[in-house]
Amino acid sequence: MNRLYHVPLSPFCRKVRLTLAEKRIEVELVEERYWEPSPDFLRRNPAGKVPVLRMESKVLSESQAICEYIEDTVPQPQLMPRDPDGRFEVRRLCAWFDDKFHEEVTSKLLYERVNKKLMAQGYPDSKNVKFGSQRIKYHLDYMAWLLDQRRWLAGDVMTLADFTAAAHLSCLDYISDVDWNRHAVVKDWYAKIKSRPSFRPLLVDQVPGFPPPAHYADLDF
Amino acid sequence: MNRLYHVPLSPFCRKVRLTLAEKRIEVELVEERYWEPSPDFLRRNPAGKVPVLRMESKVLSESQAICEYIEDTVPQPQLMPRDPDGRFEVRRLCAWFDDKFHEEVTSKLLYERVNKKLMAQGYPDSKNVKFGSQRIKYHLDYMAWLLDQRRWLAGDVMTLADFTAAAHLSCLDYISDVDWNRHAVVKDWYAKIKSRPSFRPLLVDQVPGFPPPAHYADLDF
Repeated sequence: MNRLYHVPLSPFCRKVRLTLAEKRIEVELVEERYWEPSPDFLRRNPAGKVPVLRMESKVLSESQAICEYIEDTVPQPQLMPRDPDGRFEVRRLCAWFDDKFHEEVTSKLLYERVNKKLMAQGYPDSKNVKFGSQRIKYHLDYMAWLLDQRRWLAGDVMTLADFTAAAHLSCLDYISDVDWNRHAVVKDWYAKIKSRPSFRPLLVDQVPGFPPPAHYADLDF
Repeated sequence: MNRLYHVPLSPFCRKVRLTLAEKRIEVELVEERYWEPSPDFLRRNPAGKVPVLRMESKVLSESQAICEYIEDTVPQPQLMPRDPDGRFEVRRLCAWFDDKFHEEVTSKLLYERVNKKLMAQGYPDSKNVKFGSQRIKYHLDYMAWLLDQRRWLAGDVMTLADFTAAAHLSCLDYISDVDWNRHAVVKDWYAKIKSRPSFRPLLVDQVPGFPPPAHYADLDF
């Protein structure tokens, strides 16, 4: 059985979960408190991070490398275009969300509000939370600008870029940090992703001590 | 003419410069003080980062996405294996260096010692420098462990993983922060990369106020 070592509110784990589910690859989820790494876990991934995917005899780490590996080995349904320009745009946007959005928003809101408490590292730094709350507006505006010109983030078909963005936003939505009223076009895009069967398992995630708001799992939010 | 907006001591820019040079794609280099972004620069890349590559009518950003695009469009000489397992390992190691090594070492040594001064952001934080100096040992050990089993970092052929690692290490070598005597196998690997024609332009880079040590450009270091 394939096995994914993960934490529920990690955008990188969610990106891999969504990719696996879209490709209909079954996987057993194992929660891994990576901030208290066991020797076994570090043997699987010396980087000491999640996600780690055990698939047949392979142990895979790094979410973008995992998703591209899945795309290379299970090409259908297609989550990456086949032409170089299309592939570039998907990869550029994956990096946008996993690097820039992560640095400016996810780490400033989710990690301050949730991860710090889970890891017993104290209270949220209000300077960071304020910064993240400002920056998410800029990112939602950028998404709206893209979605005004395209059906999906990277072009006219749904790709890994959409799942990468949705992985981050869904974690922030779990803590009510996304203003869905800012842009109708972004809300419509998220509603389409959220109603996919691959998304359902994410909507029942529960983190002890952090109950999700009612709208989190509501498809008509 | 293709044009690369860059700064000399950025590992992400160096990775793209090496890839372009290996593929024999000519490019004009334009230094970009991205921390004082001009409206023109932000129009090219709203992320406000370097490298940005203008190639024919396209404007490309995000170093890994750029390098994969170049590989997709100019396949020879090959810097990525063609099989999924090989591609995975290259991408995993690129992420290892661009994320983990960057976070633990490059940002703690290079950015503290050089970028802070260039950006007039004060003095190096000795806590960070100490942390980076400790962590680089771990990373050199990891590289030695890989190179004990393989000719190159990702396997038996030279790939983008080697150029990614060398891009980071070359920046740190510019400020004498790499102990090449720690592992002969790592030094031998770097000597092979350093002697490639693609590497030559990096060895004549000069950052005002930071003269490189004599061994930096020496192929017999």
